[in-house]
Amino acid sequence: MASQEILASQKSNKPSEEPETIPLETEPSTPLIPSSKYSNRVVLRTIIERSDGGVGLVGETIVIGGWVKSSREVISNIFRGSGNYPARAKLQPAPSKRVAISKPPPPILNLLVSDGSCVDSLQVTIEFSDDFPIRPLPIGTCILAEGVLSQLPAQGKHSIEFKVNKILHIGTVEDDKYILSKKRLPLETLRDYSHLRPRTTTVASFMRIRSALTFATHTFFQVNGFFSVEVPILTTTDEGFSAKFQEKNNLIQQLQRSDSDREALLAAEQDLLKTKQLASQLEEKEKLRLETLKAANIPEDFFSQHTYLTVSGVLHLESYACGLGNVYSFGPRFLADRRISTKQAAEMWMVEAEMAFSELEDAMNCAEDYFKFLCKWVLENCSTDMKFVSRRIDKTRTNLLEAMISSSYERITYMEAVNVLKKVADRKFETEPEWGTELTSQHLSYLVDEIYKKPVIVYNFPKEFKPFYVRLNDDGKTVAAFDMVAPTVGKFITGSQKEERFDLLNERINELGLPKEQYEWYLDLRRYGTVKHSGFTLGFDLMVLFATGLPDVRDVIPFPRSSGKVNN
Amino acid sequence: MASQEILASQKSNKPSEEPETIPLETEPSTPLIPSSKYSNRVVLRTIIERSDGGVGLVGETIVIGGWVKSSREVISNIFRGSGNYPARAKLQPAPSKRVAISKPPPPILNLLVSDGSCVDSLQVTIEFSDDFPIRPLPIGTCILAEGVLSQLPAQGKHSIEFKVNKILHIGTVEDDKYILSKKRLPLETLRDYSHLRPRTTTVASFMRIRSALTFATHTFFQVNGFFSVEVPILTTTDEGFSAKFQEKNNLIQQLQRSDSDREALLAAEQDLLKTKQLASQLEEKEKLRLETLKAANIPEDFFSQHTYLTVSGVLHLESYACGLGNVYSFGPRFLADRRISTKQAAEMWMVEAEMAFSELEDAMNCAEDYFKFLCKWVLENCSTDMKFVSRRIDKTRTNLLEAMISSSYERITYMEAVNVLKKVADRKFETEPEWGTELTSQHLSYLVDEIYKKPVIVYNFPKEFKPFYVRLNDDGKTVAAFDMVAPTVGKFITGSQKEERFDLLNERINELGLPKEQYEWYLDLRRYGTVKHSGFTLGFDLMVLFATGLPDVRDVIPFPRSSGKVNN
Repeated sequence: MASQEILASQKSNKPSEEPETIPLETEPSTPLIPSSKYSNRVVLRTIIERSDGGVGLVGETIVIGGWVKSSREVISNIFRGSGNYPARAKLQPAPSKRVAISKPPPPILNLLVSDGSCVDSLQVTIEFSDDFPIRPLPIGTCILAEGVLSQLPAQGKHSIEFKVNKILHIGTVEDDKYILSKKRLPLETLRDYSHLRPRTTTVASFMRIRSALTFATHTFFQVNGFFSVEVPILTTTDEGFSAKFQEKNNLIQQLQRSDSDREALLAAEQDLLKTKQLASQLEEKEKLRLETLKAANIPEDFFSQHTYLTVSGVLHLESYACGLGNVYSFGPRFLADRRISTKQAAEMWMVEAEMAFSELEDAMNCAEDYFKFLCKWVLENCSTDMKFVSRRIDKTRTNLLEAMISSSYERITYMEAVNVLKKVADRKFETEPEWGTELTSQHLSYLVDEIYKKPVIVYNFPKEFKPFYVRLNDDGKTVAAFDMVAPTVGKFITGSQKEERFDLLNERINELGLPKEQYEWYLDLRRYGTVKHSGFTLGFDLMVLFATGLPDVRDVIPFPRSSGKVNN
Repeated sequence: MASQEILASQKSNKPSEEPETIPLETEPSTPLIPSSKYSNRVVLRTIIERSDGGVGLVGETIVIGGWVKSSREVISNIFRGSGNYPARAKLQPAPSKRVAISKPPPPILNLLVSDGSCVDSLQVTIEFSDDFPIRPLPIGTCILAEGVLSQLPAQGKHSIEFKVNKILHIGTVEDDKYILSKKRLPLETLRDYSHLRPRTTTVASFMRIRSALTFATHTFFQVNGFFSVEVPILTTTDEGFSAKFQEKNNLIQQLQRSDSDREALLAAEQDLLKTKQLASQLEEKEKLRLETLKAANIPEDFFSQHTYLTVSGVLHLESYACGLGNVYSFGPRFLADRRISTKQAAEMWMVEAEMAFSELEDAMNCAEDYFKFLCKWVLENCSTDMKFVSRRIDKTRTNLLEAMISSSYERITYMEAVNVLKKVADRKFETEPEWGTELTSQHLSYLVDEIYKKPVIVYNFPKEFKPFYVRLNDDGKTVAAFDMVAPTVGKFITGSQKEERFDLLNERINELGLPKEQYEWYLDLRRYGTVKHSGFTLGFDLMVLFATGLPDVRDVIPFPRSSGKVNN
């Protein structure tokens, strides 16, 4: 079971004990033999994804490492060198008609090996001999081996193969116990094996795209002069929604318990309903409140106040926008909602940006540019992963990303959106669109897919729909907020200009009955040298969904956390 | 109080209502007038940090925004244009000797304005008139204004000044209530105002350096072919330390409560002491265990198991290294320790890297390269901030960073370190260095500052010092772990080769009495296709300390969380 060092006596497991000298430069130089800086193995991407498919490296002796994706034994010398092994050939008995008195040719093991650095695998052959008593290597076996790259005939799928001379390490697999021995498991099944699924071609591809989007995010903001700020995870302030909601909810529970008259209960329920209607985002914002508990020898009063896991970094980020100008934050945010949703997990990563001396339109412009930048980045930097995604998940995905870059996005007010939807005759919506009602995902999809056929930015919402800190428009009814909606993924960016006027912000806090003392620090930002500022939040996991065309965030989050689902 | 739109009737607050067309390219083009993409103001860094100090922009009409750093009134026309206003000039009465019958020249307001984009401020002048009834503008006032850049004589500190034509926005300050009205507050005081302190020149500078280090981190790993992985914050597994520690601690408390005989208590205490000695890292690892509590309408069983805030992403990252090869993670990690420490907060950001097919030495090489890359990046990309830091915090800091890049680091085993320290005659350590005793920060400093005079990597520690997952060396006593120690900051990187052999890892888990069922998923990584792998963790906040020369992490974390200190 587990690690098995084979042929350890003959072959050193560490070919060189001499310390490598590592150049400081990060630009990879391009020697004939591409080498991994921090390993004696060569990363397969640097072979397979060369423009010549690796042919220029033929004849080179290198070390490669990876995991077996497929394995079959064939009789050597018959097909040897042609590269056209019959598909799914099985180990055959030695041919019955032997040629003269020569020994039967030794069988060879024909593998596809992947190291997770790219979609494609390397074709690897191992010749059986007394020195190489190799058994069939099941899928998932780890192999580190020295060998030579050789060319294959042009007509095959692979242009090169790796002929093993020396095996340095084998990590075995008990075939019948290994879940990934089964080919093409559905993504739903893989979710229960989040520690193993990055070994699958599919999930590895999603995660490489996710990684590219992470770097694209930092690159976009840093190149545009934004400073990165790590906002806190533990906070004492929430955005005020859960508190309000909780209060009304408690009242109902109290009334239910106290057997009080039906009217009072109804009134309270009506009030709760109104709260729900007026601020339906409450439900979205209900969060996972994790309270500091006495742990080990840590008293309950470790922090001076109750702390929560942050729902959003917006408030804290504003504080930095009012000092450094343009700032962004990339980090985990938490919310709890037991409803099963494909767009939601208890722990999600968000990108928040905030800009001083900026108004609503600036935030829309920045959000649009950022989104286009991400789409362009993925197309340019993940081309083979995108080809795989197009092949396996959604054929139109690459075209869709391209369309995102070239289109200009429709910008309409909430009022305009309602009016446009009201005129729709050919479609019955579950909820009738009307002023004062939130646009549903059905409404938004219709705007994007049927009417404008491109991303849509809806702005100027009724103030009840948006958090207390969004800037009141001159009409006194709407606030300077926007939602950006894209095809297939729906609403994935929300933004707003913040209320910079102390009196109006203060009034709104009172109006909503938020715990004032929690927001004194936030009001300070308006007391002293207040500035107009705006920003937006992108649901990073939703962005990965958009890039890959997948429907469920649990497939693009490395270790998704949902109700009832924390296994590691 | 708060926002005050002045002269609103004469001057539009939004000069242009037309949507700006924003080019997709992120490379800033270099027009004569540098413009901020997502605002009508020009970012001051793009003026001040030009190689000509902004002189090439003289005559241009632009909009600038920022916060007043200093403000004084002077009589205009006397010094006008010379740029050499007498230091701290006060508003003077009109000169007693009037020239002929001309009116007294209108006073002008002379400001230094910063927008947080760079260390230096822009010199701004506002001429008093009936149209501009400007009062003295206290420190911290926010100003957005249109005006013209004009040249100042070469002998002054500033080479250009900005003459205001039109004020677009003023965010007032109540001088006597604003903490930052006082100049040069100590950093300790500023810690109580974490929401305001990014407005100070000093903290802004630290945070810009921190931001640069964030981007440098992603750049280093991505350019070297690592994939970014967001490991989970909520976990069910800890690294096993708190559980063990808690168990023994509970026993003692139980014995104390039960009035049992002194001997049993003593024995238990001895046992605890031994546990402490053998695994003194326990104390470091005691973590903030935050349990999911019933919140709003969220039942206690929201998750199927008790969840904790993660102490370290290493275990989860290993899972991805065994799929994607080379991976890294940058995120918040949590620990609770009531001891006041300048190097520790309850919430800190860590960078973890893990590489498949890599051994201890590879991890050391990578950690060393990464650290050198960070030092180089800061010197190249934060030169004015580093000059400021050198002036204000530590004169030698720039030289120290340069030395880090050019030196090769000393690598010694724990045993060698102990032997070297035992021979030290000129210094009495608080703890005598000897085999089986942890090296103290005093020991480590001595090695770095007095003996080798460069960073030191100590490796091959007794297995009791390191977590259960570190690979056992052939001697059966030491494990393949290393600590990297730098001048002034001490130990800031720890790394190790992981135990890839199932049987040995399993044995170690049993030996330490860790809850096995929590580690089944982790053992799976060794059950199926196990691979040698190694990696390291850098305390990101410690790295910012190192770059800035500051002693206390609370000054480089945007909103530091420590015992008793969560105010926002």
